[in-house]
Amino acid sequence: MRQSHLFTKTRKEAPKDETAKNAKLLIRGGFIHKEMAGVYSYLPLGLRVIEKIVGIIRQEMNAIGGQELHLTALQDKNIWEKTNRWSDAVVEIWFKTKLKSGSDVGLGFTHEEPLTALMKEYVQSYKDLPKYVYQFQTKFRNEERAKSGIMRTREFLMKDLYSFSKDQKDHEEFYEKAKKAYVKIFERVGLGDKTFVTFASGGSFSKFSHEFQTITETGEDLIYLDEKKKIAVNKEVYTDEVLKDLGINKKDIVEKKASEVGNIFSLGTKFSDAFDLHYVDDKGNKKPAIMGSYGIGPGRVMGTIVETLSDEKGIVWPESVAPFAVHLIAIANENGKALKEATKIYDALLKAGVEVLFDDRDIRAGEKFADADLIGIPLRMVVSDKTLEMGKVELKRRGEEKVELVALDKAVSSVSKK
Amino acid sequence: MRQSHLFTKTRKEAPKDETAKNAKLLIRGGFIHKEMAGVYSYLPLGLRVIEKIVGIIRQEMNAIGGQELHLTALQDKNIWEKTNRWSDAVVEIWFKTKLKSGSDVGLGFTHEEPLTALMKEYVQSYKDLPKYVYQFQTKFRNEERAKSGIMRTREFLMKDLYSFSKDQKDHEEFYEKAKKAYVKIFERVGLGDKTFVTFASGGSFSKFSHEFQTITETGEDLIYLDEKKKIAVNKEVYTDEVLKDLGINKKDIVEKKASEVGNIFSLGTKFSDAFDLHYVDDKGNKKPAIMGSYGIGPGRVMGTIVETLSDEKGIVWPESVAPFAVHLIAIANENGKALKEATKIYDALLKAGVEVLFDDRDIRAGEKFADADLIGIPLRMVVSDKTLEMGKVELKRRGEEKVELVALDKAVSSVSKK
Repeated sequence: MRQSHLFTKTRKEAPKDETAKNAKLLIRGGFIHKEMAGVYSYLPLGLRVIEKIVGIIRQEMNAIGGQELHLTALQDKNIWEKTNRWSDAVVEIWFKTKLKSGSDVGLGFTHEEPLTALMKEYVQSYKDLPKYVYQFQTKFRNEERAKSGIMRTREFLMKDLYSFSKDQKDHEEFYEKAKKAYVKIFERVGLGDKTFVTFASGGSFSKFSHEFQTITETGEDLIYLDEKKKIAVNKEVYTDEVLKDLGINKKDIVEKKASEVGNIFSLGTKFSDAFDLHYVDDKGNKKPAIMGSYGIGPGRVMGTIVETLSDEKGIVWPESVAPFAVHLIAIANENGKALKEATKIYDALLKAGVEVLFDDRDIRAGEKFADADLIGIPLRMVVSDKTLEMGKVELKRRGEEKVELVALDKAVSSVSKK
Repeated sequence: MRQSHLFTKTRKEAPKDETAKNAKLLIRGGFIHKEMAGVYSYLPLGLRVIEKIVGIIRQEMNAIGGQELHLTALQDKNIWEKTNRWSDAVVEIWFKTKLKSGSDVGLGFTHEEPLTALMKEYVQSYKDLPKYVYQFQTKFRNEERAKSGIMRTREFLMKDLYSFSKDQKDHEEFYEKAKKAYVKIFERVGLGDKTFVTFASGGSFSKFSHEFQTITETGEDLIYLDEKKKIAVNKEVYTDEVLKDLGINKKDIVEKKASEVGNIFSLGTKFSDAFDLHYVDDKGNKKPAIMGSYGIGPGRVMGTIVETLSDEKGIVWPESVAPFAVHLIAIANENGKALKEATKIYDALLKAGVEVLFDDRDIRAGEKFADADLIGIPLRMVVSDKTLEMGKVELKRRGEEKVELVALDKAVSSVSKK
């Protein structure tokens, strides 16, 4: 894409009411736009990052047998009353509204209830199980405070997968599979080093749930981490008994601030009982399906990447989620030669299937470099009179100082291989 | 995908409260699920169709220079008061809710206001124009009645593009381009023959807007169509004067019921004036941007395809939007040979990149054929003892009676070419 064509521009300053580092950098770079506190639009660069994250999650969910659907935001009161989760006294974060007829409807903050009700139409026999169903869907949560940028918002995209298994054993097998898929997802998006499986409170159907916590100074959670064993315990369940249970020695533990980027949860039969999601087993007995839920917020992941991987100049995107692979910069001058050569390279990169942002704008070189650092595309390729005199282009990785010169006729192949 | 893995099943009957043909067939086929009146979830098969339609629209929007973003559902009252569209007396279809603080927020039914406000941050000079910005985004409309299935719903995905041009001439040029892109979209999704550019009321900034109306008996609109000239006039502007304006002779006209699958609209300076979206031209004068809006609802398109292209047995998907290209059916028997051969073909089709639904279920052949007709995948491939005796597989196009026998070793190549 030509940067002159992109409608967004970088900004020197973030809005004054924005305190979170992730939102500040993302707004300055033109990735997001703040509509109100806790409500952000995704601009072209930001949407590209979200789509990359979504693509990675989708691959890993399909790999463990997930089937994608898309439920609705508008929620039927009757369904939520079956689990006693309609009441504002029980669930504080509902947004509710009314149909013209006067009926109350809610905006979904999660989807256990409608999905379990839906699955009842399709699950009758043990042959219909297991099933793993997921979606990328906008959730609405009426958060009292929203000051963590895109990390905690009132409207956000979420991947939520729900598992329906025949029995506890099958459930646990899938749960472990999902846990591994989550580990893989966080590795692939570039948070692997900093993200730890964390034991958290489990509710009535299992002792623990599992969170995926990424170490970051601005995290809202406190975890106790055994760095060698690569397991952590959330403060909410941090007791001597739990440590003993998990075989962790108190002296191996460090306290860390962290941000929850994913969680997985055993639901037992809570929802299948409420919605009579029972199947007939191979002996003719009626049994409830055993459920689990598995969530990741792609926006939260994006915010965490910005919180943990940026430097004083701006964002440093991992290749896997960067809006573009290459930032091609023409240092234009009056003779127009650099712009002409850069345009040739741009066309060749597109032809080679390389995702490239081409800074063809008529502005100072210093501004272009500052923008490139702020936007944070992994590879910067500069074409200037100086590089052309040597018959070369200049390559630099974002976050590294080292500069590499590559022959003009190798410019495309050098990055399409990378 | 293996049909035994798919969590949905077909149903013999649609829910009794469902009167629209599109919803009846789509529910029976397992494409959608009704959450409440006018609120439908998209199940795996339905989501695949929607994604195909979205993909086609996205390609055509990118081809005319569109840049994709994603605005929010939650809407700030202050922004909508600037155009006097917050009031329920002016806009009847708002869904509204409240933040914890007590502030009113709305659920977006369209996005002219927030996008114009957003663009003001990025448009200062004539060099910043034109810009064409679009999204696929969930709209909420509090419709009084909702009985047209997925054709008119309270929550639905919509592609809305907004154009920002320097002057009327540039605007009109883009408007014509967008009109052609729309024609192409409806051709590509299989509605080309039945869809006509239709003159409709224009509002204060232009005499006409343009609708894309697909002829269908269940359509909510009445249009007057000149079939030779391939233009139509919506009943709302159908006068002798308009006919004369458009050079249409009354005797060449037929009255038809039709469904509006898209519309494009000149907005003039209504929104740019309200939000002070002015730029400085090359002579230093301040001028308002000229705007247009361009909408298509992928769900409405899907519903219209079902309304117009299905037969008494079920849906007939055009190839371009079908959930799968091939429905491979194994007629299993006790020796298991057909299932084994079909599995080999399934694996080979996947390897060749063919999208295939593989009916590997242990049910009667008649049920499989009925399901295949209902689901409506364009090409049916049957592997049975009978076809294997001849060393062949049987191919049949949905909607045609003709059956073709193809040699086993040509089975994959014969459909991967089609």
